Amino acid sequence: MELNYSINGNSIIVPEVVVQRLPHYLNILSILQVEKTKIVSSEQLGYLAQITPAQIRKDLSYFGKFGKQGKGYSVNILVKRLREILGVNLQWEVCLIGVGRLGRALLSYPGFAPEGFNIIAAFDSDLEQIGQQIGKIKIKNIVEIEEFLQSSSIQIAIVAVPASVTKDILNQLYHSGIKAVLNYAPFTPLDHKDMIIRNIDPVASLQSLTYHLKENN
Amino acid sequence: MELNYSINGNSIIVPEVVVQRLPHYLNILSILQVEKTKIVSSEQLGYLAQITPAQIRKDLSYFGKFGKQGKGYSVNILVKRLREILGVNLQWEVCLIGVGRLGRALLSYPGFAPEGFNIIAAFDSDLEQIGQQIGKIKIKNIVEIEEFLQSSSIQIAIVAVPASVTKDILNQLYHSGIKAVLNYAPFTPLDHKDMIIRNIDPVASLQSLTYHLKENN
Repeated sequence: MELNYSINGNSIIVPEVVVQRLPHYLNILSILQVEKTKIVSSEQLGYLAQITPAQIRKDLSYFGKFGKQGKGYSVNILVKRLREILGVNLQWEVCLIGVGRLGRALLSYPGFAPEGFNIIAAFDSDLEQIGQQIGKIKIKNIVEIEEFLQSSSIQIAIVAVPASVTKDILNQLYHSGIKAVLNYAPFTPLDHKDMIIRNIDPVASLQSLTYHLKENN
Repeated sequence: MELNYSINGNSIIVPEVVVQRLPHYLNILSILQVEKTKIVSSEQLGYLAQITPAQIRKDLSYFGKFGKQGKGYSVNILVKRLREILGVNLQWEVCLIGVGRLGRALLSYPGFAPEGFNIIAAFDSDLEQIGQQIGKIKIKNIVEIEEFLQSSSIQIAIVAVPASVTKDILNQLYHSGIKAVLNYAPFTPLDHKDMIIRNIDPVASLQSLTYHLKENN
């Protein structure tokens, strides 16, 4: 997927792989900022991000000129711009689908709120779960989701349901107007090209690790 | 990171981004195989993977010739070769560090074992957790990890500890001989270049989603 990014009135296309690296850069830069680092070179940033300096320079160049040749980047300016570019200076309401073990771990995950992601509703199909209170959230019946989303401005859903029902849930979310999904179930082919999905699949990540371990053995 | 891949005695370098896409292709191809699909074109595979057909062809070409121009790929052959390339036809012993909510969800995750990943030990520093039995696993004290790993052949660790202690844990794993880590804590800069780390960071994934939502608003 590629989307247009508009800078100075000129629309440019930023490859999706670049977009997915930006939060990683922002994360490292935020740590540098806390450590009071003022200037960072593409070599230093590349070292910390485990990416080549040339790739760093190319990735950032999509969004304008950030540093002078040989001078490095201002950490403060780069953090500010990346936060704007990623929309992380905004607050986002999120709903959670599936409150099994993983869903409950996500509900109590302390890392979302400081970054502007607030889970404000949770849904399940299990009658034993529905109505239970977890912190500030009362678990709702999944059959109510379409009506609920129509009266809210939620655009993001986190999906933590068994693989077997993922496709149905994604269809339902699509028809309820959800624009973006963080999906914890293994990938399911999907026909809704205009809903953006990020898959968090620990098995796929482990498999890309074993590629290297196998090579080393 | 780039590593050599040897084919017909010739060593080639496969970009890491390609390696990370392979499990995704394998996942889709495995579904096609279950659906009894015999042949798949790069266009179909690209559609399902949400990647351009040209990228699919380029990615697969690192590992030899898989299909004839205009004929598509044999699903069975491609699945078999990708499984070999990724080492997913092997069994891997894994240890888990951190048995909070997330760690416990991972211990009960049914998706690992069918793919050859077996969590055989779990460690924590919390005295209330140590000694507890979860399924077949008795939680060990983290101070015992170096000794434990010395007498095992475990190469992979899953790390689900608070961000504040991640760096120390990664250092400890490195010195204990762990080669590969699936890390659920937000990224921490690291000096051990020869330990391969995959970060699973839901916030970073959400931030790459909001990039698009912000653009659409």
